[in-house]
Formats: sequence, C-alpha cells, structure tokens
Amino acid sequence: MLTLQAPFYRAVNDEVEVFHAAARRGAPVLLKGPTGCGKTRFVEAMAHELGRDLITVAGHEDMTSADLVGRFLLKGGETVWVDGPLTRAVREGAIFYLDEVVEARQDTTVVIHPLADHRRELPVDRLGITLPAAEGFQLVISYNPGYQSVLKSLKESTRQRFIAIELGFPPPDVEREVVAREAGVDPSTADILVRLANTIRNLDGSPLREVASTRMLILTAGLVAEGLNLRSAVQAAMVLVLSDDADVVRALGELVDAVLPRA
Amino acid sequence: MLTLQAPFYRAVNDEVEVFHAAARRGAPVLLKGPTGCGKTRFVEAMAHELGRDLITVAGHEDMTSADLVGRFLLKGGETVWVDGPLTRAVREGAIFYLDEVVEARQDTTVVIHPLADHRRELPVDRLGITLPAAEGFQLVISYNPGYQSVLKSLKESTRQRFIAIELGFPPPDVEREVVAREAGVDPSTADILVRLANTIRNLDGSPLREVASTRMLILTAGLVAEGLNLRSAVQAAMVLVLSDDADVVRALGELVDAVLPRA
Amino acid sequence: MLTLQAPFYRAVNDEVEVFHAAARRGAPVLLKGPTGCGKTRFVEAMAHELGRDLITVAGHEDMTSADLVGRFLLKGGETVWVDGPLTRAVREGAIFYLDEVVEARQDTTVVIHPLADHRRELPVDRLGITLPAAEGFQLVISYNPGYQSVLKSLKESTRQRFIAIELGFPPPDVEREVVAREAGVDPSTADILVRLANTIRNLDGSPLREVASTRMLILTAGLVAEGLNLRSAVQAAMVLVLSDDADVVRALGELVDAVLPRA
Amino acid sequence: MLTLQAPFYRAVNDEVEVFHAAARRGAPVLLKGPTGCGKTRFVEAMAHELGRDLITVAGHEDMTSADLVGRFLLKGGETVWVDGPLTRAVREGAIFYLDEVVEARQDTTVVIHPLADHRRELPVDRLGITLPAAEGFQLVISYNPGYQSVLKSLKESTRQRFIAIELGFPPPDVEREVVAREAGVDPSTADILVRLANTIRNLDGSPLREVASTRMLILTAGLVAEGLNLRSAVQAAMVLVLSDDADVVRALGELVDAVLPRA
Amino acid sequence: MLTLQAPFYRAVNDEVEVFHAAARRGAPVLLKGPTGCGKTRFVEAMAHELGRDLITVAGHEDMTSADLVGRFLLKGGETVWVDGPLTRAVREGAIFYLDEVVEARQDTTVVIHPLADHRRELPVDRLGITLPAAEGFQLVISYNPGYQSVLKSLKESTRQRFIAIELGFPPPDVEREVVAREAGVDPSTADILVRLANTIRNLDGSPLREVASTRMLILTAGLVAEGLNLRSAVQAAMVLVLSDDADVVRALGELVDAVLPRA
Amino acid sequence: MLTLQAPFYRAVNDEVEVFHAAARRGAPVLLKGPTGCGKTRFVEAMAHELGRDLITVAGHEDMTSADLVGRFLLKGGETVWVDGPLTRAVREGAIFYLDEVVEARQDTTVVIHPLADHRRELPVDRLGITLPAAEGFQLVISYNPGYQSVLKSLKESTRQRFIAIELGFPPPDVEREVVAREAGVDPSTADILVRLANTIRNLDGSPLREVASTRMLILTAGLVAEGLNLRSAVQAAMVLVLSDDADVVRALGELVDAVLPRA
Repeated sequence: MLTLQAPFYRAVNDEVEVFHAAARRGAPVLLKGPTGCGKTRFVEAMAHELGRDLITVAGHEDMTSADLVGRFLLKGGETVWVDGPLTRAVREGAIFYLDEVVEARQDTTVVIHPLADHRRELPVDRLGITLPAAEGFQLVISYNPGYQSVLKSLKESTRQRFIAIELGFPPPDVEREVVAREAGVDPSTADILVRLANTIRNLDGSPLREVASTRMLILTAGLVAEGLNLRSAVQAAMVLVLSDDADVVRALGELVDAVLPRA
Repeated sequence: MLTLQAPFYRAVNDEVEVFHAAARRGAPVLLKGPTGCGKTRFVEAMAHELGRDLITVAGHEDMTSADLVGRFLLKGGETVWVDGPLTRAVREGAIFYLDEVVEARQDTTVVIHPLADHRRELPVDRLGITLPAAEGFQLVISYNPGYQSVLKSLKESTRQRFIAIELGFPPPDVEREVVAREAGVDPSTADILVRLANTIRNLDGSPLREVASTRMLILTAGLVAEGLNLRSAVQAAMVLVLSDDADVVRALGELVDAVLPRA
Repeated sequence: MLTLQAPFYRAVNDEVEVFHAAARRGAPVLLKGPTGCGKTRFVEAMAHELGRDLITVAGHEDMTSADLVGRFLLKGGETVWVDGPLTRAVREGAIFYLDEVVEARQDTTVVIHPLADHRRELPVDRLGITLPAAEGFQLVISYNPGYQSVLKSLKESTRQRFIAIELGFPPPDVEREVVAREAGVDPSTADILVRLANTIRNLDGSPLREVASTRMLILTAGLVAEGLNLRSAVQAAMVLVLSDDADVVRALGELVDAVLPRA
Repeated sequence: MLTLQAPFYRAVNDEVEVFHAAARRGAPVLLKGPTGCGKTRFVEAMAHELGRDLITVAGHEDMTSADLVGRFLLKGGETVWVDGPLTRAVREGAIFYLDEVVEARQDTTVVIHPLADHRRELPVDRLGITLPAAEGFQLVISYNPGYQSVLKSLKESTRQRFIAIELGFPPPDVEREVVAREAGVDPSTADILVRLANTIRNLDGSPLREVASTRMLILTAGLVAEGLNLRSAVQAAMVLVLSDDADVVRALGELVDAVLPRA
Repeated sequence: MLTLQAPFYRAVNDEVEVFHAAARRGAPVLLKGPTGCGKTRFVEAMAHELGRDLITVAGHEDMTSADLVGRFLLKGGETVWVDGPLTRAVREGAIFYLDEVVEARQDTTVVIHPLADHRRELPVDRLGITLPAAEGFQLVISYNPGYQSVLKSLKESTRQRFIAIELGFPPPDVEREVVAREAGVDPSTADILVRLANTIRNLDGSPLREVASTRMLILTAGLVAEGLNLRSAVQAAMVLVLSDDADVVRALGELVDAVLPRA
Repeated sequence: MLTLQAPFYRAVNDEVEVFHAAARRGAPVLLKGPTGCGKTRFVEAMAHELGRDLITVAGHEDMTSADLVGRFLLKGGETVWVDGPLTRAVREGAIFYLDEVVEARQDTTVVIHPLADHRRELPVDRLGITLPAAEGFQLVISYNPGYQSVLKSLKESTRQRFIAIELGFPPPDVEREVVAREAGVDPSTADILVRLANTIRNLDGSPLREVASTRMLILTAGLVAEGLNLRSAVQAAMVLVLSDDADVVRALGELVDAVLPRA
C-alpha cells in the first residue's frame, strides 16, 4: 500500500539518515527494538519519504516460506499461482517489511537470504524461476533483541550485509502525543499513562517478560475513551496482560495505585 | 446460537464494564480462571446483553486450525468447503469463544493472531482468501493460568492487544443457587457440597492438581438426584476424580466425613 | 454383543449403585483397578442388568482414532466407510467400554472428549458429520492407576465430568470360585493358587511391576487342568512371567515352595 | 514348513511338558534364553512332536507389521494382496515363531497383542478384516532377557497371558555332539571348543556383551573343517567377533592359548 | 559464468601453487577461512587463470540436494528436468564452488561424496543415471573452521582426498585497496576502516562470534560514499551488526571513538 | 567388475587363509581396520584369487536400502526396475563388498541381515520376491573400530555369524612401494612420506581423529609429482586435512619440519 498521508514520525537519532543511505545502496535493514515501540511507524514514514510502496507482513513462528513467496491455489477447478507478499515486493520494487519475526522457521529465513546478500534475487522453486529484485526493492526486518530471533538463524555472512538501526520507546512528549491522538483521550490521561509506563519500564529487577509498550498505552486509553474508569482500564489492559502471576499482579496494582490520581 | 433466555449471571467485580468497553473497542478478551468456575456462563451472559450470536468451541490439545477454519469435505462425490466455527463467527460478526485452551497447538494459535491484532482478519489458506472480520466479531479466549497455556505461544505483541478479565469461583450464595437449580437438589444438599468444595479449595499445601469446581458439584448433586446417597456420590464424583493417589484419596475421604452430616 | 446370560458378579462395595446412578445421568464412568482384577466382568454384569448392548475394545498404545471411529476401506474396487466400534456404540446407544487404556495416544483421547463432556457427540471428521450419542450410550474407560494413563492426557475439565469407581482383586472366596470354574480345576487347587497370589500381592517392597492377577491364576490353573504338575504350572505361568530378573525369579520360587504343598 | 525328520532335542528340565500343556490350552509361549542357545531347535522339535507346521520369522528392529501381516504388491500391473507369514500361520493353524525379537517396533507388537490375549484374532487393517486364529495356531516368541526386549512394549495384561519357558546353553555333552555333527569335525575338536566356550561363559566380570554361543562354536568348527588351523579359526570366528576392544581381544587370546592344545 | 576480466588477487602464501597442483591432479579443494576474507575472489582468480568456467553456489543450511543436482519442474503442463548447478558443472567440466557451507544438511554432503573421492561421479537418482565428471571438473568447498561445518559430516575417508588451503584476511595494504575500489571511497577513509577492523580482529577475549570482515568494511564505506558520516556508518554497518548485546555495543562504540578521527 | 590383473597384495598374517576358509563355508566376512589401510586392495586380491566378480560399494551414512537393492525408475514414460549392486551380486554369485560403513542407517543394515545369517537370501520388498543368494555370493563389510559402526546395529545373533579379519597399515617397505608406484614419485620421496606417516601414527596422546593413511600419502606424493614442493604438498594434503585446530596444525608443522629434509 502506498502511504498517501505522511505518517507522523520525529527522528530521535540518525536513524533517518542511515535508512536513506542504506536505501540508496540497496542494502537490507535490520530494525532492533522492543515490542510496540514504533518500528512499524518508522518504516511507514521512510517509505513515504522515499515514495515507495510498503508491503508489511507480521511475522509469526508458523509462517512458512509459501506465506511469503506464494502458492498454487485452486480457483474454479484450475490451479492458479498467487504471488505472496514478498514476491510482489520483489517484482514491484517495493519496501518489504517483515515485522517482529520471532523464532521464524528455517524455510522462512532461507527465502530472505538471497535477497539480503549480493544476489538480490528470489528463487521461486515452485515456479522454477529466480526473480531479480526490481529497482527500489528493499528488505527491512525487525526484531526484539530480547527474544530468540531470526538473526540467530541468519548466516553470519548474510547478517554482515545488513545495516542495523536501533530504536527505543519514544521520548515522553512524543509518546504522550501519540497516545492522546490515537486513542482519542485528553492529554492529561495520556500523561498519566506515559508516566505509569515509564515507571514500569524502569523497574529494577523486573519479573516481566515485556514492559508496557506504546501500543498497550493506546489500547488502555481506548478503554477509557469507551467510558471505562481509568483504574479498571489499567488493570484490564496493562496489569493482567503483563503477568499471570498473582504476586506480580498485586505488586503492579500497588504501583498503579501510587501513580494514578485518587478518584 | 443466539441465547434467547438471559443466562443467570451476577457480577462480582467490574468484569461486565470491562467486557462492554472491550466489545465497543473491538478488542479481543482473555478470560483467566480455574476449570469450571463459570467462564462460559459469563460469556453467554455478555453475548445476550450485547445481542450477539455466540459460537463456542471447547479447546483441546489436538485441535487443528482446520477444526476452527474449516475444511473441504467429500459430499456425494463432490468436494465441498465447509466453514469451521471461527470462520462462521468472522463472517457473521458473532462472538467467538474458545473455551479452555490448554496447550493449544501452534497452528491453532496462528489463525487467532491476525484476528487478535490490528488486522482483524482471518486468512483462509485453503481458499486463498483473507476474510475481514464482520462488524460485531469479537474474539474471547479463556485459560487457566495454573496450566501451560496458549498464552505462552501467543506473540507478546499479540498478547498486548488483549483485554484481560480474571474470574474466580462464585461466592457461596451464588454457587449454592446454581448447584441446586442445575442438578435439581434441595438447597441443603447444595449447601453441604458448596461448603465441602470451599474446604477443599482452601486446603493448605494441597496435593491436588485441580480443586473441586462448580461443575463438579453439579455432577455430584446430580447423582444424589438420581437416588445415590450423598457419601457415595461425593466419593465417586469428587474424591476419586480429584486424585489417583491412595493417600490423598484417604485424606480427602476423612475431610468429607468431617463435613458431611452423619447419616 | 448383548450378554444373554447374566455374568457372575458379586458386589463388594457401592460400585453397582454408583454405576446405575451414573447410567441414569448419562455420565461417563472411570474404572480404576489393577490388571486382571475383574473390571471387564463388572462392566459385563452392569450391561446385562441395564439391558444394554456392550461394545468392548481392548486399548493398546498404538490404537488410533480410526480404530475407534472407523475408516474407509476398499471393497471390490469401491471405497466403503466402515463404522468403528465407538461409532457403532454412539449410533446404537450401547455401552462402550475401552479396556485398559495404557498410554493411549493423543488422537485416541481426542475422540473421547466430546463424548465425555456435556456435548455427548462424536465428530467423524472423515465423513464431515458430528453424531449425537443415542439415548443409552454410555462411555466407560478403565485404567490401572499404577501406570501412565490416559487420564493424564484428558483435560482436567473433561475428567471432572467422569464418575469414578475403584475396584480391587476380589475377596478370596470369590476369587477361588472364579478360578475353579473358569479353569476347570478342583477347589483345593484354586485355593492354593489364591493363597499364593495373595502372598505375592502382600509382599513388602515388592520388585514386581505387576502382581499376580485373577486372570493369571486362571491361566495357571488351566495348565494344571491340562495335566501339568502344579509346581511347573506356577513356575511357567506365574514366576517366569512376573519377572525376568534371576534374583527375583529365585526369590519367587522359594516363596512358591513355601506355599505349595509338598509333592 | 513341516519338519519331516525329528529334530534332535534332549530335554533338560520340564520345558517339553510345559510347552505341550500350553499348546493344548492354546496359550502363547515366551522363550527366554541367550543368543544361539538352541531356542529355534526346541521350537522345531515341539512342532514336530505336535505334528504342526512351523513358520519362523527372524525378528529385527526394522521389521514392520506389514512384514508379518502382508502387503499389497504390484504384479503384472495389478495390485495383489500377499499374506505375510503371521497371517499364513493364523489361517493355517500353524505355530508362528518370532525368533529373537530385539527392540521390535511398536507396530510389530501391536499385531501380536490380539493374538496373544483371549481374542486370538488378527486384525488385517489393509483388508478391513479380522481373522480368527485357526485351530492349532500358536504364538511363540523368544527373546534374550539381557537385552531391551519386546516384552517391555507388551501390555502387562497381555504378558500375563503368556506361558514362559527359560532355556540356557545345553549341557557340555549335548553341545559337543551338536558341534561335531553340524560342523563335521571330530569329537576332540568339538570338546576343545565347548570347553573354551564354557570358560568364556563363566568369566567373572566379563566385558563381553554376549558370550560364545553354540552357534558360534559350530561356525568356528566349520572353519576347521575347511582346513583352517584351530587357533586361526578361534581368533577369526570367536575372539574378533566377540569384541572390538584391543585389550579385550588380547585377554581373550591369552585365554584361548591357555585352553587350546599346543600345536 | 566465465570470468572475462582477471579478478584482482595477490597471493600471500603458496595457495596459488597448491591450487594449480590440485587442479592438475583433479583433487577436490577445501578452502578454510573466516567469513568475508576473500575466498570467493581467490576461486574466481584461479578459474580465470585455468581458463575454466566457475559455477558458484552460496550454501545455506536449508539447501537440499535437489538445489544442487536439479529437479523436475512443471512447464506448460509438462514435466521437464532442469539441471542444478552441480550437475551443470559436472557435465561441462567447470569448477564448482560451494561457498560457505555452514551446517549443510546430510543429503547435500552426500551428493558431494562420490565427486570428491576416486569415483568422480555424480549419481542423479531422479534420472536413474550416474554422470562421470567431465575433464576439468573440480570441486571446491569453503568453510569457516570456527563454525560447525560440513567437514564434520564428510566421511574421514572422503576428507582425506581433499587438498586443504587456508586463507585469512588480506594484509592491510591489499584490504585498503579493495575497500577503496569496491566502495568508491578515498584511500584515507579505507585506511581508517581497515585499521578499525584490525583493532577489532585483534581484541583479546573478544565476545564477538565473528569479527569485522573485508566485506563489512566495503559495506560501511559504501554508506559513507552515499553521504552518511563515518561515525554513523560504522555504528550501523559494523557495531550494531556485530552484536546485539548492549554492553558489547557500548564497548565497541568506545573503541570506534578511539580509532576514528575527531570530527 | 572382474579384476583381470592380479592386484598386488602381500599377506602379513593368516588373513588370506581365513578368508579362503570363510569363502568355502559361505560365511560373511568382517574386515576391521583404519581408513585407507588397504582393506579394499585385500578384497580385490581375494576376489582375483577366487576367480569371482567383485562388486564394491562405498558406504556413506545417507545410503538407503534402495541404493543397495534397487529401485523403480522412469525410463521413457515406463516404470522399469533396476537392480542395485547388492541384488546384482546376489543374483550373480559375486563378492559384495560394502566399504567403510560408518554409521549406516537402519534400513541399510536390515537388508544385510538375512544375507549374513543362515537364510542367505535377499528380500526385495518392492518386487515382492525373496532372492536366494547364488552359489559363490559372499558378503564382505569393512569398518573402522574407532568409529561408531554398523556393527552396533547388527543383531548380536547376526554378528555371531561373521568371520572377522583385522588389518592394519602395511609394513613400511610395502607402503613405500605402493606410494611410489601409485603416485609416480621416486622411492626417496615415498620413503620420507612413509616415515612421516609412521611418526604421526605413533604420536602419544594424539589429538587427531584419524592418522595419516596410505591413501593420504599417495595423494600427497601426487602433488609432488605435479611439481609442488614437498613441504607445501605435505601441508596441503596432510597437515591441514588432519586438523582444523590452529595449535594442532602448528604442532604437526613442526613435526613435519623435523622429518623432512632441509631444502
């Protein structure tokens, strides 16, 4: 999809310059950062600036190479080949963004290899062809370094052809603005949630697998926008989602009570 | 099935408000709670209040994605596609409730992912189509946090889009009423069973994998309604079901003898 | 098969009353007890009393769901569906008895689940249909709690819908009668074997995986009925079957010599 | 094959009486004993005495149920069913002897189960039929208790229907006669080999996985019969076969030098 | 592809003489060396000197034998055999170079075996033929001894038929020239990067899985050639690619700051 | 292939007599010895002396039974059965030599079993036939006792039917002659290499998985015959092949420098 309206993105470091240089060189890009920190938004902004189509795929551990490359389908009694999203990006010279690839399967990373190294081509075994990547094609993959990651299954020699960009959660003022705008809540509610999130993110020795993300704040704020009181929304969309452990849930609840304004 | 008669449900906490807010937002809901505590009843009540169809599937560890999405079947020599329950819910805008998903297999959780995150769509690979969820579709899954759970195989980024609600066993007065009404026994028998259940639930350092649920009490009471004496019914439907260990069975039996009235 | 002649069964506890109540309620029954203690005989007696057909399947660890549900077979060049024993029981409203399910495979227990819980239905995937259990259908499964058991792979929520009955070896007088009648030996030989069996069953710190069952006594007595001397029969059908360990075999032999009358 | 000439077998214990009684009762027999001790010869002798056909299969760990039951084969463009040896024995009422089943695979033992227990039938899944065992059919399996064995994968309830017979190496005089006759060597050579074998069999704390069997002695004597000198024959057919370990080979060689006559 | 222009390669040791002797003898060659050190370039130079075609395949762990040997493909409704790159090399007498085989799968190494030992032939199972290698065919495989390698799955008897050549990173003057020429940067930038790389390569007790390769320097310099400042280029194409560990990234960053000229 | 010219072989022990006796008896032979010590040559010499055809197969761990027995192939649209090498040997009464079976797969050893024991037959499952071995057929397998070996997957009862022969590296004078003749170098070069090999073979506490074989010496000498200097040839064909470990390579290099004449 071609992003018609410029997505809101404010650069924190040199990530924009690095992405542009990599794009001019045709080098694949590796985005590192935690869940829900805005990696997708960054890629959307870059695609818009470069005037290229963006094809995004949300990775999951059961994704197969056919999900990316394409497959034969039965339509009206005939077998028809249908390009997968990666194949379309390769043909059209689009940016292909493989979002949050956690523990991707081997046969998925294999189709990425020849596109990431100097070959810049996609073998489509089922068709018996090898597609050269069209001008403008660019591979972007993101992952959370805190997880098992596809990077471990990329050949070192392939990984050494990636350009890496590291992103974190946005600074409080940006995050506040995003939460307020996307969930439709007033700035003060957004401010409370961002402060709560940062308190959780900065916990020493946290037992949480994942901290509260910008995305989670938007969802919490969304419940408030639907009329739920703030405390219930935080409990349902943050506390109980972050942990199943009774002790952790209680401790998080106390922390929430300390940050939230008294009703 | 559209629940015509309002199911009996009395709210204990803010669970009703949270569910309604999530439903308005179209966010998926995660119900946490022990086996047989009334999760299904809660969902039935919510569906009735919202005036939506409810499609319930009892999860099991051998469930495949085809059980949810559908499959081609041979009917009279022809191959016919038959929608699975999830696909029907997606098409019709119903509430889809996946009950007690213990250790669900990977390919099952995969079909849930794109419905749970911002895509709200169901890829039907066999048909080569991707169905957008109809207005009103809502995903609800339940699990027992004490078990290995599907949650462990949900991507963190997907889990962060769920709204979580935690339920427990109903308070004694509600449980008494349910047992008496559903099994057809008098209130005093129901009262004895509820007291027995709560004694078992509150055992310190219990060796049981699972405590006595509301559902188990209904079954026990059902044997009494069939004419079996109370002690035999408790032994057969509670004690011997809760454990295979001879020592545990003996200890439970003594506990039962202490709670039950002398014949 | 409909048992025409009433099988000999003398109740020890309340097992008959419990079974009848469960049958009236349509609840599935779980028989616990050691190998060869008479579980099958009990079910046969119950089926006879209730006037229902009994379909028995001896479980084994390589049993597949197709063995229970049915399969397509090639007959004279055509593909014909043949109901498995479980499907027949579901259609005909018979008692289905799955005997000694040790380490049953996952896909076997899966077909049992929906019949054991409130659904009382059997999905026949290959036919694309779901059969409701006919009036009178009842599921009975037996297992030996000393083993790995199917129970471990039943969902807790399903297990909580079973009524459990525990059986042991019959009291000496009953066992004596059964051995004498079934093997065709005189009462004194049966008495010696029952005493020997009880001595083995009561060994402190026994190294045996399984004790001598009623069934084993019948087989031993059968060899005597064929003219073999008692000591050789006991050695061949009991001692050498119970253990492969030379030391255990020797110790058992000495125990036998102490119990058997001097020739 | 019907053994026309009575095989030479001299009873050591009550093994003949036990086998006959089991045969009259139709009970399956379990032969225990080390590799090459004469188990096959015993079964051949029993079959001859009983006047029944004997069908022998040498078990191996890659044997499949199809090897026993039969399979469809392409013959001249047509698919033809060919009975396996077990199916033939079941149809013809022969003795079926499964020799030295080491680590038999699951699907092999499964086809044995219903023939070994009270059902006495063979399900032939590929044909969709269940064959009742013809009068006279008897199942005999042998194994070496020193190994992993099929017995471990037989259900205890099935094992308890077997009659067990334990065999060892024959006494020296019998073994001498067998070696001399089968290899065609003079009695003094046979005597030396039997003495050597017994020395090896009685080693304290032997590092050998398997001792020298009667069969090995026959092969060694056979090399002598072909003109090889005794020392070379013993080295080639016994010492180097019994072990790959250089130290063990040397120690065995010294033991051989001590037992063999000086050239 | 026949390399028309002589690739730039300056010999460091006797690697050229060894390769020529092996080529005359028809012996397979094993190139050892780290990722991105110039192994491919060396093979290209040798192929050019010998006037032979070079067919290069970049190995990856999901490569199958069909990727090397060929497969049947559906083209316009017909099944057509398409030679794989190895088969082409065997038929045409080319040099076949299997680059960076990390953890190659078993069925891949199997097709190499008969070409590496005295047979010099390629069995093409799918066609039922065995192709003798044409005059001039030579097998070259490379690997990084620091990794799990295909060599571990080559039979020792096969490995003993290889001629081994060990390569390292080029000396600084050569590496500088290569970086400057291939990335299009000035010599001083190339010099800084080469010095930085050698500092990283010589770290004591380095926590890096892989050091900075010549190839990585070319990519870094490429970003500079696209206008990115040197520090950002080094961070994106070297530091963040070499490690995901925050501490290691920080330490590498400090090292970079020490080597790079102050802006 | 029938070896027309008598291969050069000088007996070291009684291996020739043992092989002849085994051949007369039709007993299978097991050759033990290190990689490249001349096992193949010995078998070739025996086949020539006995006037029998020799069919040799170089075993590898991915060999399947179809590689030995045969398979159906598509030729010109028709399915044609093609005998494998073992089947040919069985039909023609040839010596079948399975060379260096390292870690052979189960289904490979299974086809050997019935040929190695008293049955002397080859079941060809795909054809539904069992071939009796023709007069003169003899099975010979070789292995390196230092490795995991097929012997571990042969049944003990089968192994006890093999005649074992142990071979080592040839004595220096023989090895010198072989190296000089096969590689085409002068005796003094061969002498140096043989001395070097024996130094390596006799290293105390050697870290090498495999020592330098006669075959390796021939290859090294071959590089010299192609004009490479002796030191480079030894480094490339011996040192770097024997180890990937830098320390071991350095130590071997010093050892080589001590043995080789100063240039």
